[in-house]
Amino acid sequence: MNDLAHLPSGLADRLRAIVGDAGLVTDAHAREPFETDWRGQYHGKAALVVKPASTAEVAAVVKALSDARVAIVPQGGNTSMCGGATPDESGTQVIVNLSRMNKVRAVDAANNTMTVEAGCVLAELQRVAAGADRLFPLSLGAEGSCEIGGNLSTNAGGTGVLRYGNTRELVLGLEVVLPDGRVWNGLRGLRKDNTGYDLKHLFVGAEGTLGIITAAVLKLFPRPRAMATAMAAIDGPEQAVTLLGKLREACGDRITAFEYLPRICVDLVLKHIPNTRDPLSEPYPAYVLVELSDNADAATANATLEEALGSAVEEGLVRDAALASSDAQRLALWGLRENISEAQKQDGVSIKHDVAVPVSRVPELYALAGKALAEKYPDIRIVAFGHVGDGNIHYNCSKSERQAAEEFFRQAADVNHIVYDVVQSLGGSISAEHGLGQLKRDEIKRYKDPLELELMRNIKKTLDPHGIMNPGKVL
Amino acid sequence: MNDLAHLPSGLADRLRAIVGDAGLVTDAHAREPFETDWRGQYHGKAALVVKPASTAEVAAVVKALSDARVAIVPQGGNTSMCGGATPDESGTQVIVNLSRMNKVRAVDAANNTMTVEAGCVLAELQRVAAGADRLFPLSLGAEGSCEIGGNLSTNAGGTGVLRYGNTRELVLGLEVVLPDGRVWNGLRGLRKDNTGYDLKHLFVGAEGTLGIITAAVLKLFPRPRAMATAMAAIDGPEQAVTLLGKLREACGDRITAFEYLPRICVDLVLKHIPNTRDPLSEPYPAYVLVELSDNADAATANATLEEALGSAVEEGLVRDAALASSDAQRLALWGLRENISEAQKQDGVSIKHDVAVPVSRVPELYALAGKALAEKYPDIRIVAFGHVGDGNIHYNCSKSERQAAEEFFRQAADVNHIVYDVVQSLGGSISAEHGLGQLKRDEIKRYKDPLELELMRNIKKTLDPHGIMNPGKVL
Repeated sequence: MNDLAHLPSGLADRLRAIVGDAGLVTDAHAREPFETDWRGQYHGKAALVVKPASTAEVAAVVKALSDARVAIVPQGGNTSMCGGATPDESGTQVIVNLSRMNKVRAVDAANNTMTVEAGCVLAELQRVAAGADRLFPLSLGAEGSCEIGGNLSTNAGGTGVLRYGNTRELVLGLEVVLPDGRVWNGLRGLRKDNTGYDLKHLFVGAEGTLGIITAAVLKLFPRPRAMATAMAAIDGPEQAVTLLGKLREACGDRITAFEYLPRICVDLVLKHIPNTRDPLSEPYPAYVLVELSDNADAATANATLEEALGSAVEEGLVRDAALASSDAQRLALWGLRENISEAQKQDGVSIKHDVAVPVSRVPELYALAGKALAEKYPDIRIVAFGHVGDGNIHYNCSKSERQAAEEFFRQAADVNHIVYDVVQSLGGSISAEHGLGQLKRDEIKRYKDPLELELMRNIKKTLDPHGIMNPGKVL
Repeated sequence: MNDLAHLPSGLADRLRAIVGDAGLVTDAHAREPFETDWRGQYHGKAALVVKPASTAEVAAVVKALSDARVAIVPQGGNTSMCGGATPDESGTQVIVNLSRMNKVRAVDAANNTMTVEAGCVLAELQRVAAGADRLFPLSLGAEGSCEIGGNLSTNAGGTGVLRYGNTRELVLGLEVVLPDGRVWNGLRGLRKDNTGYDLKHLFVGAEGTLGIITAAVLKLFPRPRAMATAMAAIDGPEQAVTLLGKLREACGDRITAFEYLPRICVDLVLKHIPNTRDPLSEPYPAYVLVELSDNADAATANATLEEALGSAVEEGLVRDAALASSDAQRLALWGLRENISEAQKQDGVSIKHDVAVPVSRVPELYALAGKALAEKYPDIRIVAFGHVGDGNIHYNCSKSERQAAEEFFRQAADVNHIVYDVVQSLGGSISAEHGLGQLKRDEIKRYKDPLELELMRNIKKTLDPHGIMNPGKVL
């Protein structure tokens, strides 16, 4: 309990009066899971964890903390990839965890929207949408525990972006508690609204540094009736980009997933993950996992994808392909993609890069970064895979078997710069979908236009003049 | 030439040194088309019209004007529906017209993007995209003369929003000259980039009050291979919303247009526009114009739409339907929709409202606004039609034949409030796609949360501390 000493006198009582005992986590041991990120890479220390259960409570909590100039760390499911929701080590910051705000306020099927609170778990929202015969297309690895407020604050990406866009594109309206505790009610469910500056896009992706998102109006989509899924063997990233173009020409936006896996990814999964098997009868240099979603029946969907891939085989672009003919086969193909991170982890430590370039420049990314790394670190193993359809590659580097982990990590800053410099030269981004958080807060200064950083700082100062919202993140 | 007297001494020479004689319009007569909006409703007076031909010229011009604290009116094709690009009457403001900046800088078909300058005419960009076998889906009445910088600054809507979103959703990157003359280069062609606040969304829809957009990276899409177009007769707005849901269930996002026309619209077009004919053998209370776009062949597209409409006929939801069997028939159906404004104009004066509500509440909009207007103005003729799929209704009111235009217009403010109050009660927007400009700058104060207006003003002050960018618009 003694960390409360870090709080101005009377503040804990004021907070308790707002959220009650159920909304306060004061015990040091109970606080721990909130103070550490899920990968165990960031360990902070908070004065207190507050868990408000309504927008009014969030507003009152923020007002109290703002009055006392106490720094606030907004937190959802705590699944940040870059320490975005972890407090610093001072013990003076207060975590405001939104998990108790988990109501679906409304589902409007005719408007294709649902209004949800920040603490709703993503997978639960997918189910709610399905229950209304609609699709909420945001889908990502952490969906079983991440919360929509965090998805919104980090503009989460995932596997549905090719067709449906990032979280930013899935939101029509927001409710936000501002850094002074006032509530901006922008919960509009409108497809068109041109009445001034679009404030919601400031808060989406701001990683909690401009306010706390408490609720949102999210877009829903017609639920696809059929999926067709295939693994296509190709020669490399250049063929992947060409194939993507051909498939979109043939099938339009029914192509809803297009994931690239070089052979090393398949090898790692086969080696470390039980019950997996090579997708084709012999190994190939690389693969794309393609999925087509349609409102027609399954047979038509399969035929469309089969025909498109067949024509690519005839052209010599695709060397072989396997079409899933059952749900089990579909899941097996996706398993090869989704288990890469886990397999890579079991195989040893790695230096990870979540980068994006224009889709047309993905082959150059592979060629240039591969060459630059090989010259300096001939033993490094490049395990680079991902959302080619979005130009978003998880350009991971695993250590060689003979190298010690410590030695490998000493190279991390240099490896980062080699990769990021290539990304920069291709007009890319050093954080495609994970955000900046603490992890890339300083690195971004090397790559972003100082004028853009200045504009960001000016906006931060305008909305949060006392700098209490998630300090030490992003900027 | 004497209006130059309104400019601080030496400024005209400084501007001439930047843009040359070809870039200055000083003659009062030559200035006129720039000082008046296309509908002739706003008549301003500018000190000068400057037409820079490059980003560097725009930057230097803005720097010169900013140094002298001279107000700037950014202008593209000058097709604003709300006086957004017209100067005030002081004769002291300078119009910066972007029409000479009309280069397509790059088309990247593999990335599905094109990089274009602000002065490119929209229809030309549609052609450029088609030339690369891609679709640029923004489409609206003024497309032959409006410029993309204006489309971006007003977040233009149009007929493709149901499937492709507003202009905001079509932009990946921006280049903006800030109010102090510095250039923010945010011309990124990335689908994913989570490295801080999303500044582009501040400038999109800001109607030139935060800076001048000089170039943009726009999204392209697979070009549909086939269209199926039909006019379906229904009973009213409730049936329209139900039908939209059913068609999207059956055809998914292949439904790319869904426009609602009550019978009065068809009557007006048939009366005033030559070579038009009733779409079905007898008149019905209302219609929807439905279009399906697909990458399959035309026969499949037609069969899909026919089957979906057939099932709606069986249910009694659709009373009759005509499917276009040729391009000529397709254009004839679209002509009924696209000529409504012209027919209404020829029929006499009207009070127009570009409003949006959640799609599910469109029937209530018709019922409540219709009832409230009928009670107070029993003779008023409601000509309300539009993009039901976006909840965006052009809720226009025509005067009765017996009423004088002047008397009718005296009621305008009251009629506006009746309609806008209903829109507000339904969670709607009083400007769906046209923006605020001068027209609704004051009206919006009645309907928008004061906190949201305060946030907008704070952002304006931060980015444009001297208030020189398009003053008197939006805020």
